[in-house]
Amino acid sequence: MIAAVSPLAPKSFPELPEIEGVRFATGAAGIRYKDRTDVMLALFDKGTQAAGVFTKSKCPSAPVDWCRARLKGGKARALIVNSGNANAFTGKAGAQAVKLTAALAAKATGAPANEIFLASTGVIGEPLDASKFDGVLEKMSAHAAPDGLLEAAKAIMTTDTFPKVATASAMLGGVEITLSGMAKGAGMIAPDMATMLAFVFTDAPIASAVLQSMLAKSVQDSFNAITIDSDTSTSDTLLLFATGAAAKRGAPKIVTANDRRLAPFKQALNRLLLDLAYQVVKDGEGARKFVEVQVTGAASASAAKKIALSIANSPLVKTAIAGEDANWGRVVMAVGKAGERAERDKLAIWFGGIRVAHKGQRDPAYDEAKVSALMREEEILIRVDLGLGKGMAKVWTCDLTKEYVAINGDYRS
Amino acid sequence: MIAAVSPLAPKSFPELPEIEGVRFATGAAGIRYKDRTDVMLALFDKGTQAAGVFTKSKCPSAPVDWCRARLKGGKARALIVNSGNANAFTGKAGAQAVKLTAALAAKATGAPANEIFLASTGVIGEPLDASKFDGVLEKMSAHAAPDGLLEAAKAIMTTDTFPKVATASAMLGGVEITLSGMAKGAGMIAPDMATMLAFVFTDAPIASAVLQSMLAKSVQDSFNAITIDSDTSTSDTLLLFATGAAAKRGAPKIVTANDRRLAPFKQALNRLLLDLAYQVVKDGEGARKFVEVQVTGAASASAAKKIALSIANSPLVKTAIAGEDANWGRVVMAVGKAGERAERDKLAIWFGGIRVAHKGQRDPAYDEAKVSALMREEEILIRVDLGLGKGMAKVWTCDLTKEYVAINGDYRS
Repeated sequence: MIAAVSPLAPKSFPELPEIEGVRFATGAAGIRYKDRTDVMLALFDKGTQAAGVFTKSKCPSAPVDWCRARLKGGKARALIVNSGNANAFTGKAGAQAVKLTAALAAKATGAPANEIFLASTGVIGEPLDASKFDGVLEKMSAHAAPDGLLEAAKAIMTTDTFPKVATASAMLGGVEITLSGMAKGAGMIAPDMATMLAFVFTDAPIASAVLQSMLAKSVQDSFNAITIDSDTSTSDTLLLFATGAAAKRGAPKIVTANDRRLAPFKQALNRLLLDLAYQVVKDGEGARKFVEVQVTGAASASAAKKIALSIANSPLVKTAIAGEDANWGRVVMAVGKAGERAERDKLAIWFGGIRVAHKGQRDPAYDEAKVSALMREEEILIRVDLGLGKGMAKVWTCDLTKEYVAINGDYRS
Repeated sequence: MIAAVSPLAPKSFPELPEIEGVRFATGAAGIRYKDRTDVMLALFDKGTQAAGVFTKSKCPSAPVDWCRARLKGGKARALIVNSGNANAFTGKAGAQAVKLTAALAAKATGAPANEIFLASTGVIGEPLDASKFDGVLEKMSAHAAPDGLLEAAKAIMTTDTFPKVATASAMLGGVEITLSGMAKGAGMIAPDMATMLAFVFTDAPIASAVLQSMLAKSVQDSFNAITIDSDTSTSDTLLLFATGAAAKRGAPKIVTANDRRLAPFKQALNRLLLDLAYQVVKDGEGARKFVEVQVTGAASASAAKKIALSIANSPLVKTAIAGEDANWGRVVMAVGKAGERAERDKLAIWFGGIRVAHKGQRDPAYDEAKVSALMREEEILIRVDLGLGKGMAKVWTCDLTKEYVAINGDYRS
C-alpha cells in the first residue's frame, strides 16, 4: 500500500559534476538501522567558507545548536550527517554526543573540531550513541572521493523514498562554477525552515558573509515556501559550502554581497534550492499530487504568503486534492481563516487554467467535467486572486492521503 | 470502513426537559438530500432574548452576515437551520436566499423577519434554492412542539455520525431554570469558532446584553478550545436564546452582567457548552481517540493556549495517537514550532499520569510498556509543563486517521 518510491519522483537523477575541493564518503555506524549506510561525510579543502539557515523551533536539536555556533567562524573542513537519530531533545547527553562526534571526526580527518559541521535526522528524544562513529569515520575519511554525492544523499534518507540531488552551473567573472546539492526530508516539513536537511556545495570563491546573505534570501522562495504537513522539525538545517577552488581557474574572489558579478550565481542558487525543495515536496509522505498554490492581488506580499500557506496547509483542501475533487469551497474556507484581508465578493479562484469562482460565487461558465479532468493530473495548480492589491506569493505542497496517516501512525514503533 | 457511528459517541442521549417558550419542528425541504429531514425550526415566545458568537472567517456565509445584523435588536422569535447547503460564498444570490428564507419563515410563523435567525450547513459555494422552504415551513410551524429538540438536532447533521444534545439546570433567584442545546459539526472544526453550528435554549429571564457577555466568555474554554483539523468554517455560529418563561415561576429578570445571582447559571452554561464541544470532538471525522492537551507553566495563558493548539493541530502528533504511539518527540516538535517561549531543558511531558520526558530529555524512569497500554485507551491525556511561569490552558482534539482522509477525500463528489 505504501509506495516503494513516490510516484512523483524524478524519472532519473541528473549527472552530478564533481565539485573541486569536496570529497564524499558514506558508512554504516548502526545508529538505528542495520545493513544500510546511515552516515555521510563531506571533506572540504582548506579555506572553504560556510553559511547556514536553521529551524526556528524553540526546541532545536543539539546539532543545530552546534552548527549555529560554528558558523561564527565562517570556515568549514568537514560535514558529518547521520540518519536514524535526530539527537534532538536529548538534554545534556545531546550536547555531549555532538562534542564527541566532532572530536572523533577531528581525529579521523585532521580538521579542527570547530570547523566541523554536524547534522542528525531521525527519531527525536532518543540518546545518540556517538561512540558508534569511532573507527567508522576513519575508514570513511580514507575512502572519501569527489564523486560520492548521490551515495551521500542516500545515506541520510529516513522516510524518504528517493535521494534528492540537484546541480546547476553559472558564470562567475567569466569562469564557469558549479553548485551541487542534496536534500533529505519527507515529513515534518513546513516553514521555517521547510526541509529537514539540505547541503549545497560549490567551487565558487565567495566569502561566508556573502554566502549567508544570498542563502537567507534564496531560501524564502524555495525551502520556506514549501509545506507538507505544517509541522516544523527541530532539526531543519540548510548549509552552503564554498570551497573557492574555482579561483585557481581564474574566478574572482567575491567579498561583498552587492557585487554585480554575483547575479548569475544567485540565479543558479535559487534554481538549485527550488529544485531540491520541489523534490522534498514530491517525496512528501504519502504524496500522490504536487500542488502549486499561487496567490495574487493580496494586500501585501506577506499577506499573500500567509493566505497561500493557509490553503497549502489545510487538511480539508489537501484531502480534497487527494480525492481529485475541485472543492473550491474549501479554498474559500482556507482564505477566510488566514486572518488576512479578504473580500468575499472580490475573490476569484482557478484550478489549472479554469476559473471556478469569481465575484463571491461560482463561475457560471465553469465546466465541472473539464476541471475534474485536471484534478486527475499529477500536478495541480490552485490560483487565488484577492482583487485587493499587488501582493503575490507561491507555495508548494502535496495532497494528504491515507498513506500519510499510515506512515506516521506507525513510524516509531 | 467508515464507522456508522463514532466509537466515541455517548452511549445514550440525556433526557431533554422541555424549555418553556420554545417549540421545535423538522421537515424535509430536499435541499440536497432526499428522504431525510434537512431543516429544523425553533419557535420562540414573544420577548425571547438572543445572543450569538460567530466565525472569525474573513469570508463568512450569508446566514452569518444575516444573524450578526439581527442580533443588534436582541430579540428572537424563530430559528431556521438547514443542512445540505451552507449558503456560503454564494455572492448576491446568497444574500437573496437568506432574505427569501426569512420572508417565507415570517409568512409561515407570523414572526417579524428581523427577529428570525438563520443558519445553514453543508457544501460551500453552491447556490441555495430557498424557494424549497415554501410550504415546508408552514407545515413545520403548524406542528411545532416543545419536545422536538433531539429530532431538530438530527435534522442539521451532515457528516455527523450522531446528534449532539445536552442539558443542564441551575437555580436563578431560588427558581430552577433549564438550559438545553444542540450542536452540529464533525470536520472543519477549529477556533475561532470551533463548531459549525450550536444552539442553546433556556427559560431564564436574562437580557440579551447579559447573555452576550456570558456567551462570549463561556465559549473561550469550550468551543474555542477544541480543534479537529485546524480548519475554520465560514459558517460557525453559536446562538443562545432565553425565553424568560421562568419569570412566571418567580425567576428574577437579570439585566446586568455582574448580577451575583447569575453565578449558578454561568456555571451551568459553561458545563453545557463544554459538554456539546466534547461531543463535537468525539464525532470528529474519523476520530477513534479523544485527546485532552493540558499545558502548564507557560509564560502566559495565551502562550499556553497557543502551545496547546500547536500540539492539538499537529498532523504528526495526531497520527501518532491514531497509531497508539506515545511519540513524545513529536510533542516537543509541536511545542517548538508554536513560536512561544520554551526552554528545552525545562520541558516535561506526560502521557496520562506517566512522565515520559523532563529536563530536556527522556525520563529515565519511564516504562514504555505502561505508556503503550495507556495509548490503547479511548481517551488520551497529553500534559506539557514548560517550567517557565503560571500560564495554563486546556484544549481538546481527536486523532487523525485514514478515515478522516477517506471522508474528506470523497465528500462533495
